[in-house]
Amino acid sequence: MSQPKYGVVAVGNALVDVLSHASEEFIAEQKEKYGMEKGAMTLIDEPRAVELYSQMQAGIETSGGSAGNTMAGIASFGGKGGFIGKVADDELGNIFRHDLVSMGIQFDTQPLIMGSKTGRCLILVTPDAQRTMNTFLGASVELTPEDIDTNLIAQGQITYLEGYLFDKDTAKAAFIAAAEAAHEAGHRVALTLSDPFCVDRHRSDFLRLVESHIDILFANEEEIKSLYMQENFDDAVSAVSKHVEVAAITRGEKGAIIISKGETIEIAAEPVDKVVDTTGAGDQFAAGFLYGFTEGKDLATCGKLGAIAAAEVISHLGPRPETAYAELAKKAA
Amino acid sequence: MSQPKYGVVAVGNALVDVLSHASEEFIAEQKEKYGMEKGAMTLIDEPRAVELYSQMQAGIETSGGSAGNTMAGIASFGGKGGFIGKVADDELGNIFRHDLVSMGIQFDTQPLIMGSKTGRCLILVTPDAQRTMNTFLGASVELTPEDIDTNLIAQGQITYLEGYLFDKDTAKAAFIAAAEAAHEAGHRVALTLSDPFCVDRHRSDFLRLVESHIDILFANEEEIKSLYMQENFDDAVSAVSKHVEVAAITRGEKGAIIISKGETIEIAAEPVDKVVDTTGAGDQFAAGFLYGFTEGKDLATCGKLGAIAAAEVISHLGPRPETAYAELAKKAA
Repeated sequence: MSQPKYGVVAVGNALVDVLSHASEEFIAEQKEKYGMEKGAMTLIDEPRAVELYSQMQAGIETSGGSAGNTMAGIASFGGKGGFIGKVADDELGNIFRHDLVSMGIQFDTQPLIMGSKTGRCLILVTPDAQRTMNTFLGASVELTPEDIDTNLIAQGQITYLEGYLFDKDTAKAAFIAAAEAAHEAGHRVALTLSDPFCVDRHRSDFLRLVESHIDILFANEEEIKSLYMQENFDDAVSAVSKHVEVAAITRGEKGAIIISKGETIEIAAEPVDKVVDTTGAGDQFAAGFLYGFTEGKDLATCGKLGAIAAAEVISHLGPRPETAYAELAKKAA
Repeated sequence: MSQPKYGVVAVGNALVDVLSHASEEFIAEQKEKYGMEKGAMTLIDEPRAVELYSQMQAGIETSGGSAGNTMAGIASFGGKGGFIGKVADDELGNIFRHDLVSMGIQFDTQPLIMGSKTGRCLILVTPDAQRTMNTFLGASVELTPEDIDTNLIAQGQITYLEGYLFDKDTAKAAFIAAAEAAHEAGHRVALTLSDPFCVDRHRSDFLRLVESHIDILFANEEEIKSLYMQENFDDAVSAVSKHVEVAAITRGEKGAIIISKGETIEIAAEPVDKVVDTTGAGDQFAAGFLYGFTEGKDLATCGKLGAIAAAEVISHLGPRPETAYAELAKKAA
């Protein structure tokens, strides 16, 4: 087992977020016309992305992508890490790369040349602070097993896989390659299920992945129920606990539960003055948890760090930290 | 005199802002090496923009440009307007255009083809909430008199000129063309001095412009002292009052004063819980003032609306409204 240089190496979609406010009526109209699902992620193609953008209010742009957000959170705690994902050789790709590299995250994946543009996620934030995502994957979906830098993977204590990426055969193959490289180095593999619809589209592949390759699983209630096709949350939890070493299930304002070796730990949500935008809540919970885990903290502390990070990110617009998580963790300790 | 369709038509730099946090030490080091001036705007070329960006922390991107910000503020009050400015035919140019058009601002200036990229302003926000700007003007500086849509100008009650643009002969000629078109239609022309260094570089041209073409002048204390080369604020104020119908001078936390026809009106700053980022404060003061003016309000009310908008924008990161100014104005009334 080689000595890991990094806490976490993530494999995920390289996306730039475009965030703007939207009314409930707008979402309802878009659902009717295009099947947009409030609170969930809908995949869209480029013409639809252009059309939807033209109907959106003025917004802000910020690097996003679920695993990218998590790595930004880990860096904010003071952790070291790497990222594998595909941008194009364009402005938005430069922005995405800059924002990770400037936080000390190693990110060397070659950009896509002469193909799709850098992917983007058009995020509509309703007055209830809920985010509804519409993703044009662009270059990010062109990640292949050749992009998996097995040397980088071997240097991470944990390889973290983003379920959103699990929509195309080449990306699925890339996941397997990454998981195998990590286990070969004697390290752990974590996965976030990301989205109930994604789980629904690829249930059998996800189940195979979880059973054969995953040590630490992140999911929310909907996702875990979808994975095991259980209406009852407890039944889903009991199913997952047989397959992974640790499962961390987020439950929104109810906090989270962590299941490991037959033990269940409840994590309370941290108080928030005003919830502004829930974008990135799950990503930052994973950041806190993974940072704690790689620092050798007990599972309750890992969960607490996750809750601290999630509470910070939902108190402002955007999916990445605005306040240094290391400071927040110090204050809480 | 034709019936104006719009309150304000602005001529300004079309820029996308990149905002990130920076330490005092970083600014000091950049001042030493590159002459970066804390709190002011420094013009930079493209290689320097690339270098500086690589040294900046992770940031957010948002449409900016002084007059563009003002138009976004006017739209947020419920006003109608137009914008004239030059982007390139690229991603950042699309973002800039989207963010104005989505607010109902008419913006039809042809993008620059096969030239510079869309301009950007790299903004460093220090812990004291002060912003230090570094602008690569890019395509925005290629605005020429041919871009001045005199039909659009004739439809605005006020044509608003951004002093930052006043750095190149073609842009100066564009200003004169715009001012003449406005006055021909029987309407007013407003100018913001934008920056003491810009005033310093072009003092005699600015003085000629103000004396011959400007009805309403916006400036802060430094700028107005620089324009008239007066060490004493009152002397500068007395000089400007001879040349323009209305002068609105912002004074940071001391509020603003409005001078018109021998009368001086003091405007108190609105209270702010926490100043997060002063980017856009002057731009949004101008937005409130101009909106009130075009709605026929008295000067004290115009100033109050300016103070309300400025207080909102300094309470969050970024130069444009996050809360609808129409709501804030209603609450205050």
